[in-house]
Amino acid sequence: MSGSGEFDYIRTRLAPLSLGLPGAAALTDDGAVLTPPEGCDWAVTADTLIEGRHFPHNEDPALAARKALRANLSDLAAMGADPHAYMACVVWPDTNREARMSGFADGLALDQDIFGVHLAGGDTTSAPGPWMISITAFGSVPKGQAVRRSGAKPGDQLLVTGTIGDAGLGLKARQGIYAPPKADVEWLAQRFTLPEPRCALSGLVRQYAHAAIDVSDGLLADARHIAEASRCMLELNLDSIPLSDPARHWLTQQPDRSQALLELASGGDDYELVLTMSADIVTDFITAASRLGVAVTRLGEVTFGGDSDGGLIVKVDGEPITPSSFGFTHF
Amino acid sequence: MSGSGEFDYIRTRLAPLSLGLPGAAALTDDGAVLTPPEGCDWAVTADTLIEGRHFPHNEDPALAARKALRANLSDLAAMGADPHAYMACVVWPDTNREARMSGFADGLALDQDIFGVHLAGGDTTSAPGPWMISITAFGSVPKGQAVRRSGAKPGDQLLVTGTIGDAGLGLKARQGIYAPPKADVEWLAQRFTLPEPRCALSGLVRQYAHAAIDVSDGLLADARHIAEASRCMLELNLDSIPLSDPARHWLTQQPDRSQALLELASGGDDYELVLTMSADIVTDFITAASRLGVAVTRLGEVTFGGDSDGGLIVKVDGEPITPSSFGFTHF
Repeated sequence: MSGSGEFDYIRTRLAPLSLGLPGAAALTDDGAVLTPPEGCDWAVTADTLIEGRHFPHNEDPALAARKALRANLSDLAAMGADPHAYMACVVWPDTNREARMSGFADGLALDQDIFGVHLAGGDTTSAPGPWMISITAFGSVPKGQAVRRSGAKPGDQLLVTGTIGDAGLGLKARQGIYAPPKADVEWLAQRFTLPEPRCALSGLVRQYAHAAIDVSDGLLADARHIAEASRCMLELNLDSIPLSDPARHWLTQQPDRSQALLELASGGDDYELVLTMSADIVTDFITAASRLGVAVTRLGEVTFGGDSDGGLIVKVDGEPITPSSFGFTHF
Repeated sequence: MSGSGEFDYIRTRLAPLSLGLPGAAALTDDGAVLTPPEGCDWAVTADTLIEGRHFPHNEDPALAARKALRANLSDLAAMGADPHAYMACVVWPDTNREARMSGFADGLALDQDIFGVHLAGGDTTSAPGPWMISITAFGSVPKGQAVRRSGAKPGDQLLVTGTIGDAGLGLKARQGIYAPPKADVEWLAQRFTLPEPRCALSGLVRQYAHAAIDVSDGLLADARHIAEASRCMLELNLDSIPLSDPARHWLTQQPDRSQALLELASGGDDYELVLTMSADIVTDFITAASRLGVAVTRLGEVTFGGDSDGGLIVKVDGEPITPSSFGFTHF
């Protein structure tokens, strides 16, 4: 209704986020018209972030909004797709709503500029309970070139971008479970709060990768998703996982190095990319990614297909170990 | 994780709902590849339904799932789009989860068969608080032919499908506020619990209508959305709104007929279509819709554009009245 908070908010704060996307009709319709660019498919992904579960209760609303958007953009990057548009369904809690509504729109505006993406539509409701942000994102990818989890081939190498485990340590710091050295505080907080989706690599992902996934549940869990979807065995050398200096600092304080590495490799929210590709093009890929400012590390290899359902073999010092957990599950 | 409830559920209960849609990759990926059929646009819409707000706390989970899907299909029908696929983001509550998960998949399976639509992907999470079902639906519409709220033209007639106010009465009955005669109980309950999206009319909507919207907030609220988006004045004769026999029975018991009609016309969840079209084709449209089993009623007309922001004039016995409320808002 005009004059109501809901419709005023859509008109004054959300509709401006749709400008530049004619099919969104300035959010005056219940639906958008979204057609992929000529010669492209849509890659479509959806993620819901919940206050108290995926971001802390006292999170800056702009950062919560950006993390929700970025979690989806990260999925698009793993598919080799370029961000285009997104739908946002938000359930506003009954408390502290004004500050959240304002910060939410501010945060999205910032990330829209960074990633070249526009709001296409969605739904705003309210309910008792936690704040929830559910985003469905659309990325364009040349027809037939979307990269899947299921494409890994025996002989492929297994790679990962950036560093692993920072977000989990950032969460521990936020929860007061870990007190990082002063110099590490900001890095770890940033990695947990405002992950960097690897959108810059989307073109290289579709050019080079047989299979890819982003690390949201945890490196081991997500590598295993590739193994299962591809019906291959993946060998992952835990000693090889790339660590930031802050993660190394934490590691040196742990009594059991293998257990600590497992912990870093099963923390979620890193939003790095795990990829497999032919061994003969790995060096080219690493060089090309480096030119875009992204470090890539070799983690292991795809050993064989066989008749198994596929699985992940985790090795430390060349010996297989059995992790007690691979990563996060909701239930 | 294999062996966990979350991934087992996706594999055994949700993945079968994606069969027939190759781009969904049997839900083994974080994203789907969704490209509209040759020569078509995607119409994309999103709606979140929340337990205790959009469906009752003790609702049959299969019916809750179907209502969530149908609310979205109704939006597609209003745009003149044919249902194709949907993404489902579900937040499962901590209580009574097993029954809900099972009923949810059962309900979607039933409606997928009825409406010819497939699950493309989504996200399952859990949180304390109410059960939430957020669906983003994709419908195909020939390029450039999506029907908008904004297309109403002076001289158009204003029409509505089916009957209005039943769902609101069904809710009252469910809440124990209204005790319908025995013969009316089932009809009212059904209209609230399992609305009938007017998908059968999508082709006629794009062929005939200048503007359309589905009735989710309430007839008056949604008619006003057309008026505002089209920057036209709409005149709606409250005496003309189509009523079912059960709604007539309720009406005869009300002390103030005008107020009672306003109440019926501002109840939500009817999921009928409100349309405007040129006066000279209205009879043809009504005949064609009737052949598809859908009654259509003339409600009024689009009077003029002018320089106003557009608005709705509600008339009883030819005289304008001012409703105290047009329909539902969340805040």
